[in-house]
Amino acid sequence: MEKFYRYEDLWRFTKDVFCSMACSAHDAELAATCLLRADLRGIDSHGVARLNGYVRLWEAKRANTRPQMEVVHETPSTAVLDGDSGLGLVVAPFAMDLAIRKAKNVGSGWVAVRNSNHFGIAAHHAMRAVDEEMIGIVMTNASALVAPTFSIERLLGTNPICVAIPSGDEPPFVADLATSTAANGKLEILQRKNEQAPRGWIQDKDGNISINPHELKAGGALLPLGSDREHGSHKGYALGALVDIFSGVLSGANFGPWVPPFPSYVAIPENMPGKGIGHFFGAIRIDGFRKADEFKRDMDQWLARFRNAIPAKGHEKVLVPGDPEREMEVIRRKMGIPLLHAVAENLDYLAGNFKILPVS
Amino acid sequence: MEKFYRYEDLWRFTKDVFCSMACSAHDAELAATCLLRADLRGIDSHGVARLNGYVRLWEAKRANTRPQMEVVHETPSTAVLDGDSGLGLVVAPFAMDLAIRKAKNVGSGWVAVRNSNHFGIAAHHAMRAVDEEMIGIVMTNASALVAPTFSIERLLGTNPICVAIPSGDEPPFVADLATSTAANGKLEILQRKNEQAPRGWIQDKDGNISINPHELKAGGALLPLGSDREHGSHKGYALGALVDIFSGVLSGANFGPWVPPFPSYVAIPENMPGKGIGHFFGAIRIDGFRKADEFKRDMDQWLARFRNAIPAKGHEKVLVPGDPEREMEVIRRKMGIPLLHAVAENLDYLAGNFKILPVS
Repeated sequence: MEKFYRYEDLWRFTKDVFCSMACSAHDAELAATCLLRADLRGIDSHGVARLNGYVRLWEAKRANTRPQMEVVHETPSTAVLDGDSGLGLVVAPFAMDLAIRKAKNVGSGWVAVRNSNHFGIAAHHAMRAVDEEMIGIVMTNASALVAPTFSIERLLGTNPICVAIPSGDEPPFVADLATSTAANGKLEILQRKNEQAPRGWIQDKDGNISINPHELKAGGALLPLGSDREHGSHKGYALGALVDIFSGVLSGANFGPWVPPFPSYVAIPENMPGKGIGHFFGAIRIDGFRKADEFKRDMDQWLARFRNAIPAKGHEKVLVPGDPEREMEVIRRKMGIPLLHAVAENLDYLAGNFKILPVS
Repeated sequence: MEKFYRYEDLWRFTKDVFCSMACSAHDAELAATCLLRADLRGIDSHGVARLNGYVRLWEAKRANTRPQMEVVHETPSTAVLDGDSGLGLVVAPFAMDLAIRKAKNVGSGWVAVRNSNHFGIAAHHAMRAVDEEMIGIVMTNASALVAPTFSIERLLGTNPICVAIPSGDEPPFVADLATSTAANGKLEILQRKNEQAPRGWIQDKDGNISINPHELKAGGALLPLGSDREHGSHKGYALGALVDIFSGVLSGANFGPWVPPFPSYVAIPENMPGKGIGHFFGAIRIDGFRKADEFKRDMDQWLARFRNAIPAKGHEKVLVPGDPEREMEVIRRKMGIPLLHAVAENLDYLAGNFKILPVS
């Protein structure tokens, strides 16, 4: 079912596809690097498997591959960026770099983005800040799949929060989490295998617990982190909500049930209050608080203490957020990236369509 | 079991107690207002029921009621504040006001605090920013009760995150959530009633599921939001961890298992890497991103959409974070604050001890 591909080969091919969509060479490289970072880190749902989805967004004229991005409002530490309907894969690095520049000047930088599209995995963007000895913070809203606690309506996306924190000798802390109990990608895996979902991931159209992974098609919803009120779903709901407000309302993008969907065949919501989807980026200089070497010394102590915590029976070790993805990246850079047959076929189709060299 | 007290009477009494602990009149008023805000909002575990705990911290010389707070490092948008071992109830408003001043100057302000003590409820501090047309963000670490996913060790506090967001005509969004599945206060209620805890709140000393609310005394731990790996406990763990790092590591306070406990009879950890407990405060000017009236218009639309969402069967309405606490505050300002007999007795004891007029 799976075949392995070299990262470099997939990168060249993905870049060629973005170039064929009229991206500049610079933007195509940015977008390919971002998209493939998901495959490297094992987040297969957000990698080249989605390349065709971006192509279709562009074909449907919902994504602009030659955006004129514009800072529409700013203070020394804050800004709103209009992404001009650009690919999120290109808009996000631009916004993060703007946040980093502001942090260099005044200690921290915060950029809300409107009029963008899906930006791949948040961790890739947040880690740009870590390279500059800064904490990186990234959020985005997305089309609604999650029901607030006590509701039967889908009003929030899986709205991730990512925080990446630099360190000294220990590998860094990189938390990148959907604010729903289960990400949609995990549901898609169960759908393909026709397996049941655990209780606590999904509700049906009336708000009852469901284990049917196809329930969303029948009007059901994903549940916020916490699953039910007794286990704190009101907290997951609150977290998803604040991601929506920071990304959508602070920026002037769409929010709640009005966020436009990624699949180009799904209709755009009516009476949209803003522009495109919204993101939020933050960069904090660690030496805005303490000398960098003191922070790194303490951060290393923190990381070592948690990585060496006593595991429960049946578990080999205790992980720090980002450890599994970093370990996967090392493996896949060496061993290659496995693609399902259907995904590989789809890349061949794109090669034929754009008359570019297929990936081998 | 319960008797009702007027807010004004409890406030006068609480202020007198703090004055008796050598607080200045100004600090005693700040502390009383903060502590009683918890009772008003229905967070009884963090209100006057804890007054005696603060007295004991002071008696044990673990809290300094005449602190010389000092900004030890800063940039235009960031600072570290040393609380000089002051009461968190007094240090926190000072730190939040510093964040607000920085936001007025450069769009946002971020203050990490070391060498502090427990600060009551985070929402009270975050809402100071809302009064200034800013988003308020507040975090704090606390002594370790929560085990990371896959571990049997208690390494994190219930580490809350609070975000308060201004609005126009609709009441504001105020999310204030412990990053554990259940707050310790809820466990204490079950302990008093000798009732079982729901599965998913606690594990025993070996990492097995437990429903015994006394399990923490036997080496057990609270579980991160999500309860278990299948339901996303690694996300709750990541959130609690980042609160710990922002509050403890960025500031130079203690972190992880080294955060000192609130009860004065519990020993201080050995080899503490920092000073006191840590907090983190943020203030973001909404007009650092958009015109305030545009933001408020969209925020009102967001709030109205969620408050009017279709409820599931058995639920009257869908809530926005902060709604229950705001409604409780209206009731209790009018009807008074109910105190358990044991709490009222304890206040009488303090009145006798400090020779001040008892609360009636």
